[in-house]
Amino acid sequence: MRPLDLVRKKRDGGEHSPAEISFLVEAFTRGDIPDYQMSAWLMAVFLRGMSDAETAALTDAMMRSGRVLDLTEILGVKVDKHSTGGVGDKTSLILAPIVAAGGLKVPMISGRGLGHTGGTLDKLEAMAGFNVNLSLRQFFEVLQQAGCALIGQTAEIVPADKKMYALRDVTGTVESPALICASIMSKKLAEGIDALVLDVKTGSGAFMKLQEDAEHLAAMMVQTGQRMGKKVAALITDMDQPLGRAVGNSLEVLECLEILRGQRRPMSEDLRALSVELSAWMFHLGGRVASVEDGRELAGELLANGQALAKFQDICRRQGAEDPPRLPAAKFTAPFPAQSDGFIERIQCEQVGLASLVLGSGRNKHDDVIDHSAGLELQKKAGDAVKTGEPIATVHYNDPARLPEALRRLAEAYVIGPKPPVGQRVLVKKVIFPCNNSQAF
Amino acid sequence: MRPLDLVRKKRDGGEHSPAEISFLVEAFTRGDIPDYQMSAWLMAVFLRGMSDAETAALTDAMMRSGRVLDLTEILGVKVDKHSTGGVGDKTSLILAPIVAAGGLKVPMISGRGLGHTGGTLDKLEAMAGFNVNLSLRQFFEVLQQAGCALIGQTAEIVPADKKMYALRDVTGTVESPALICASIMSKKLAEGIDALVLDVKTGSGAFMKLQEDAEHLAAMMVQTGQRMGKKVAALITDMDQPLGRAVGNSLEVLECLEILRGQRRPMSEDLRALSVELSAWMFHLGGRVASVEDGRELAGELLANGQALAKFQDICRRQGAEDPPRLPAAKFTAPFPAQSDGFIERIQCEQVGLASLVLGSGRNKHDDVIDHSAGLELQKKAGDAVKTGEPIATVHYNDPARLPEALRRLAEAYVIGPKPPVGQRVLVKKVIFPCNNSQAF
Repeated sequence: MRPLDLVRKKRDGGEHSPAEISFLVEAFTRGDIPDYQMSAWLMAVFLRGMSDAETAALTDAMMRSGRVLDLTEILGVKVDKHSTGGVGDKTSLILAPIVAAGGLKVPMISGRGLGHTGGTLDKLEAMAGFNVNLSLRQFFEVLQQAGCALIGQTAEIVPADKKMYALRDVTGTVESPALICASIMSKKLAEGIDALVLDVKTGSGAFMKLQEDAEHLAAMMVQTGQRMGKKVAALITDMDQPLGRAVGNSLEVLECLEILRGQRRPMSEDLRALSVELSAWMFHLGGRVASVEDGRELAGELLANGQALAKFQDICRRQGAEDPPRLPAAKFTAPFPAQSDGFIERIQCEQVGLASLVLGSGRNKHDDVIDHSAGLELQKKAGDAVKTGEPIATVHYNDPARLPEALRRLAEAYVIGPKPPVGQRVLVKKVIFPCNNSQAF
Repeated sequence: MRPLDLVRKKRDGGEHSPAEISFLVEAFTRGDIPDYQMSAWLMAVFLRGMSDAETAALTDAMMRSGRVLDLTEILGVKVDKHSTGGVGDKTSLILAPIVAAGGLKVPMISGRGLGHTGGTLDKLEAMAGFNVNLSLRQFFEVLQQAGCALIGQTAEIVPADKKMYALRDVTGTVESPALICASIMSKKLAEGIDALVLDVKTGSGAFMKLQEDAEHLAAMMVQTGQRMGKKVAALITDMDQPLGRAVGNSLEVLECLEILRGQRRPMSEDLRALSVELSAWMFHLGGRVASVEDGRELAGELLANGQALAKFQDICRRQGAEDPPRLPAAKFTAPFPAQSDGFIERIQCEQVGLASLVLGSGRNKHDDVIDHSAGLELQKKAGDAVKTGEPIATVHYNDPARLPEALRRLAEAYVIGPKPPVGQRVLVKKVIFPCNNSQAF
């Protein structure tokens, strides 16, 4: 097999065999296919697309480029969740303890934030001492004992993705549904899970701005997971404004703790609802409950009776955090006032994310250092009536020089109109769960 | 301007401005754009195509990446011919002296053979002493004095093409009409010519197998030349069997000398006719004659009265060859017998080219050394009746170990059927010469 022939085949719209795809992935990961040849292939894939069979083969080959965890020694059904990322998206910290408290195993390997979106690992590390770099042995132990462990990507798992993503990033080939699907699914399936719930965001703050594109990607991921023998469902959810009210690592952990403690605040209600919904699907796919409705009920109980909170504290302790978790606070806070009278039409996520990023809560480049205490709290969200000068958000910061830029971004983020927005906001826009996607454990 | 943004623009089907294209070409030639980014752009160009304006801008930017010859000091109209390449295609050696003898200037920069196709430089070098590596000063001198000089590509002329072609060759992006057009036209227009005749081959032995594709490329090159202020015509010509009867460097020069001496052999009649036709168009575009018909007459006269031959000898002398030219002969010859009774339906060029290549007449890689004496003579061509065992071609070789492979390829090349082929073979299938493509010199 010659790489050039495979580039030509894809260029001409041909369909690769699984053997061809695994040859490409293996040879590229080994360094036997030069970047310039791989990038031509990636662009051909971008423009020609991939069949379902090719996408599954790519996912499988990438998954096998490194270690695939064998969790058979750990009793119970293993389930996980993956989100395509957004602003204020912190459901993992709530649903992981809920689902583990409900008796399923959650071996969760997460990522870091980049650009305007945050990452689960950064939020966990806001808690002093929390170690996301467990060895695989430690990961197995915590998972066995607590029912859940939360770690970062290791070099052993899906090395092909790291190399391929770095090349896609500089060759304009990131936004290909087939390549995104294979990147996400290979890493999740390498966790050795039985079932996976996907939270595919759509809206101004999401990677997929159009619901149609989000549904296309979701369907591709569900089908790929099914082809690989897993139970997979995808929820298409709203990212037209930040989720919950906190943006920034410490602030987001505090918001999660409030929900785990059963406290209710209207601005965080969407976060609570989505965490419950995703947990319910995890329970359902994991065979813990007969229906999603039963799953919602179980998640609600585990939040109300304190078992989810206890599980969260258990995980934190086992992964090195103090009890109660110690979270850094910013030196200063400043109110952001409404710029006009009216109703909040929408909050542009990207601007909110960039406002938080400029304060130090995120990364422009992979090796930037994060200020865990910096961030924003949104006191008013879409639909709320506001008056000029009324504080509608709070900026948490350490470096006063960065405040003006953050406020400028917030002024761009909040779109205030004269009339209340028409129609009801829908959090979960669609569920993709084909009928034949059911198998007993 | 960021290269990545330009890759994305072309990926999404956008049209580049001339400034964007010249930025890409300049930065890539300087080494400021890495190969992996350029190859993604090349694949996007391959699949998205280029507008006429983009193709002209690319041609112009590539031409300007190096030295553009200024031939104003040389009196007379400068014309050239370019062929997209084939098997037995040696018209340059005949038409260049015809046209120079007719009073126009022919500053011809040619290439070498690769794979199954031959190259003008290799044929010239079959004549002992012929120097195709003149300095530009020497090139100007020979051109001034003889009216024609024949040299190879220099490092000073269109360096962008050398770098870009090397990358296209390994990334499956060679066969893009826009990229082919810019590669050919940038090099030809850097010669400082006023008019250009293109011989675009079509058929089994051509780069463009389908006439439709050949016409598309031809129209693109004619339009690009026009946009750059040159007079350009393209002839779509047959490459469904080798041109003339000789394949291999010494043998091809001998065949050209026969035609220049006015000798007639039926198997070489197509070569003579095409050389006259291309010369006629060069005379016409160069303003030497009022019509192509007049051009044909003039070319015929210059062959008949010995002036074309004298011009050929003059050029050879000035470029270092002996007079008469000394051509190496192979040690052995072997007949190739017809494999069955019947009529020759066609002669597959690629197999003929590979048969000659295996004998040593060509290159598999750029740095292979050529055996100028090796090659083939075809005594029978399409339409001829043959009997089993009758010699229909002669193999000229030095290494007996290579004979069987050459004979095997010839057996594949000659397709013999029971009935004579239907219809007349047409040598010039179409001429592309738009009405507005006329300007006075």
